[in-house]
Amino acid sequence: VSFACVNGAESTYCRITERGLQYGDGVFETLLCLQGTPMDFERHWARLARGCDALRIVCPDIREQVLEIIRDRHEHERAVAKLIVTRGESGRGYRCPDGVTPSWMVSIDAAPDATPETGVDVTLCRVRLSLEDERLAGLKHLNRLPQVLARSEWHDEYFEGLLCDCQGNLAEGTANNVFLVKDGGLVTPDLSTGGIAGIVRQKVIDHARQQCTLLQIRRVAIAELRDADEVFLTNSVYGVTPVRSVAGVAFKVGSVTQTLREQLCRPNH
Amino acid sequence: VSFACVNGAESTYCRITERGLQYGDGVFETLLCLQGTPMDFERHWARLARGCDALRIVCPDIREQVLEIIRDRHEHERAVAKLIVTRGESGRGYRCPDGVTPSWMVSIDAAPDATPETGVDVTLCRVRLSLEDERLAGLKHLNRLPQVLARSEWHDEYFEGLLCDCQGNLAEGTANNVFLVKDGGLVTPDLSTGGIAGIVRQKVIDHARQQCTLLQIRRVAIAELRDADEVFLTNSVYGVTPVRSVAGVAFKVGSVTQTLREQLCRPNH
Repeated sequence: VSFACVNGAESTYCRITERGLQYGDGVFETLLCLQGTPMDFERHWARLARGCDALRIVCPDIREQVLEIIRDRHEHERAVAKLIVTRGESGRGYRCPDGVTPSWMVSIDAAPDATPETGVDVTLCRVRLSLEDERLAGLKHLNRLPQVLARSEWHDEYFEGLLCDCQGNLAEGTANNVFLVKDGGLVTPDLSTGGIAGIVRQKVIDHARQQCTLLQIRRVAIAELRDADEVFLTNSVYGVTPVRSVAGVAFKVGSVTQTLREQLCRPNH
Repeated sequence: VSFACVNGAESTYCRITERGLQYGDGVFETLLCLQGTPMDFERHWARLARGCDALRIVCPDIREQVLEIIRDRHEHERAVAKLIVTRGESGRGYRCPDGVTPSWMVSIDAAPDATPETGVDVTLCRVRLSLEDERLAGLKHLNRLPQVLARSEWHDEYFEGLLCDCQGNLAEGTANNVFLVKDGGLVTPDLSTGGIAGIVRQKVIDHARQQCTLLQIRRVAIAELRDADEVFLTNSVYGVTPVRSVAGVAFKVGSVTQTLREQLCRPNH
């Protein structure tokens, strides 16, 4: 980590009474920052606020402070900032006493290289996403063990792994949403049984609606992958990433993916 | 917290790169300690080791050190020690690099008062337990948001809340397992679709088998509660706790529960 702050003060330490550690009791956002400016900040902030609402954490009023920290600390032209908000520190027990102040942490690192235009190789994970209570579904919360276990299924031989939900339908990657292109239209899982509603996923959806591209947001059987003309991933750090193979099955990197990649990954889009 | 240590050194701080915070990537045990001696330590240690195994965390060789810390730090005659083991510290991303050293933390507090022999009042929670991948099922891991949300459904008017799994069957309390007594026999959920396999739960099961008490470990429909003769909770801190009401429906505190409470809660059992 090249910079970290906890509750606004530069530090790499938090208390072990932190409920983020004890229970994963919080939410996070991962922001791609170009020359000190986070991309799609309004969308990220809105999702963070929704996540806090769902968990009944009073989202701290740190919007301007976070922007300032990222602006002042852009040692890297392209950086990734991770923002965590938790319910705060408390004693033992799931109940959080009244009056506990939420904690927040920002860590900033150099951004990884962009993904190749020629596409990435993807595997299928054996781990299934947890089917969560509806209050948790879709939230970018700190309970991420399914993703950790899924990511441990491979080393560097793949860029990403796709996960199914507990009913065996395609849900998402460990850190990317997934889209199929079929006959020029887009298909993406509806996430009703697992998965995070990604910011770039929403941008692709909004763009498709604007352009009147055929778009289906629904349950996607894993077998449908094989019939896709193109497959791509979406994620805030990498934007749109073409997939050239899933579990050894090859896909072409086609014009639908390429166009979206160009149009949605511009900083000022 | 009256005492805390991180990786063996007295401290109340951990790094924010701790995967326990970032992802809930770890397991924990809660130990009742009487005059510096943790109860059922072998069972707790075995469960911790199994949990680490399941998550492929190399369980640190801290058995004797943990016992020593608890022995040296028993400011309270009755204390609760919480032991957390995580995969360790790492950079951003679900993948944990090779060679990362697991972290461990012990915090010690005064134990709460024993539960009353006359029984406690219990509510039914609206939150459902997550249906987890089989690699996570039953583990006492750090992804505990369902329990946090469930516990936020009431204040002090109840001692505990019972949760159903995603299929609507009775699973467990937020921090206790649950048993029904019917015609002198015991019934407890099999936890196949959610819930932690508690240490005192296992002691009750072992005891029932020894005594040839009729014992059923199976799916339990929530409607069966109403027909129970007695209901009790099990938990390492409180042992066996009689239930005198669930969601306003009264139960008697009967002899099966009372006998188990006396027999299993003795320190040297």
